[in-house]
Amino acid sequence: MSVRLTAVGVGPGDPEWITVKGQRALAGADVIFAPCSEGSEESLALRIARPWLRTDQRVEVLPLPMTRDRRRLEAAWQVAAGRIAHVLGGVAADRGSARGAYVVLGDPLFYGTFTYIWDALKQAHPEVQVEVVPGIPSFVAAAARAGLPLATTSQRVAVLPATYEADQQELASLVAAFDTVILMKVGRALPRVRAVLEALGMADRAVYAAHVGLPGERLVRDVRALEDDEAPYLSLVIVRKGGT
Amino acid sequence: MSVRLTAVGVGPGDPEWITVKGQRALAGADVIFAPCSEGSEESLALRIARPWLRTDQRVEVLPLPMTRDRRRLEAAWQVAAGRIAHVLGGVAADRGSARGAYVVLGDPLFYGTFTYIWDALKQAHPEVQVEVVPGIPSFVAAAARAGLPLATTSQRVAVLPATYEADQQELASLVAAFDTVILMKVGRALPRVRAVLEALGMADRAVYAAHVGLPGERLVRDVRALEDDEAPYLSLVIVRKGGT
Repeated sequence: MSVRLTAVGVGPGDPEWITVKGQRALAGADVIFAPCSEGSEESLALRIARPWLRTDQRVEVLPLPMTRDRRRLEAAWQVAAGRIAHVLGGVAADRGSARGAYVVLGDPLFYGTFTYIWDALKQAHPEVQVEVVPGIPSFVAAAARAGLPLATTSQRVAVLPATYEADQQELASLVAAFDTVILMKVGRALPRVRAVLEALGMADRAVYAAHVGLPGERLVRDVRALEDDEAPYLSLVIVRKGGT
Repeated sequence: MSVRLTAVGVGPGDPEWITVKGQRALAGADVIFAPCSEGSEESLALRIARPWLRTDQRVEVLPLPMTRDRRRLEAAWQVAAGRIAHVLGGVAADRGSARGAYVVLGDPLFYGTFTYIWDALKQAHPEVQVEVVPGIPSFVAAAARAGLPLATTSQRVAVLPATYEADQQELASLVAAFDTVILMKVGRALPRVRAVLEALGMADRAVYAAHVGLPGERLVRDVRALEDDEAPYLSLVIVRKGGT
């Protein structure tokens, strides 16, 4: 009895940023699984994937809490993994095999929660065979929309969450060592990130991108033009020393 | 008279790793431009794009030298840009508008030569309007094939060419500061990279990937299993400390 789950990176916003392989995995799935932050109206990954789904395709939304409480998170990942295994197991019992697709914003293995769900599946439901279809990471799409090179020839790139990088000395040393520094999930860290970039004289070399490829996309080439409380969770800053 | 060029990232190997947007840009192009290393039999980006091209679609191969001589490179980029502008200008003179697509391995702005061609277009042929369709970078595809997380929650990732990272102290400090270190274009640097990783006790935490998604794909989870002269130019090593 074959039970397969394909994690499909749907990219950060524009539905056409999905890969052809991802599109096919969605089309061939018996069940679509979509993570959704608890309290949200909808799953953003599901919204992006929607144009590629059949109207009668079965969709299971998996609620995940927005918390840093590791025990609550682990419990939720186990529940989600159990739900996937249960639903696909039911399909396989009927038909002899089951194929699921789990939609993920951006790429399944570059941030995001799929890694944890996968760990929970490996531990408790090893009968579910997982494969991954890569997706366009948000910063790669942001660079494309802004026409901004990320790296050429011998250049170095660092990618890290902005929330942990409000320290001026730390960011200064990263900017010194790397040609491009990408700060993910800017959100509430924006005022601190901007203050550090201003102090480094890099504010006008930092491109801010929010909701790339979605309605309300915003690209700003000088972070000084932003309001303090403007940045949503799905925003990033690309700091580039320049030169090709 | 509208003259447009879309740089399309075709991903690192499997033709189905192209985005739906990229596939459409290829289908709608009057002319496909494909870079090719001088002396190579064919353009690898073109080979990957081929399943999405019409049999009668016009293809222009742009030879680019494999050299570090910056003056020869710049001359070649200018010739390539001139060729693109000339060919698309001819189409536009006939039809009133022209659409070209330039195929790029991986993503157009993450390594690769498109950035240079684009600079040459901006300088000498500003009538050519360029847009970029992002592609799956090779390391993102390699992680998907290997089932290896690149980053979770608060983790940091560094991406850099292996050729410049044969120094043990430097690589040790990168591995200390980053959860994941991705060494691109391993090629002839393999013996030195492996020696450094062995000295750091990280050889068995370093996944080697070559020709991902292509015939001859190789994934090796311990770099000690590799021969010295084995790594082609299109290979990479993902060093991951572990933990999610």
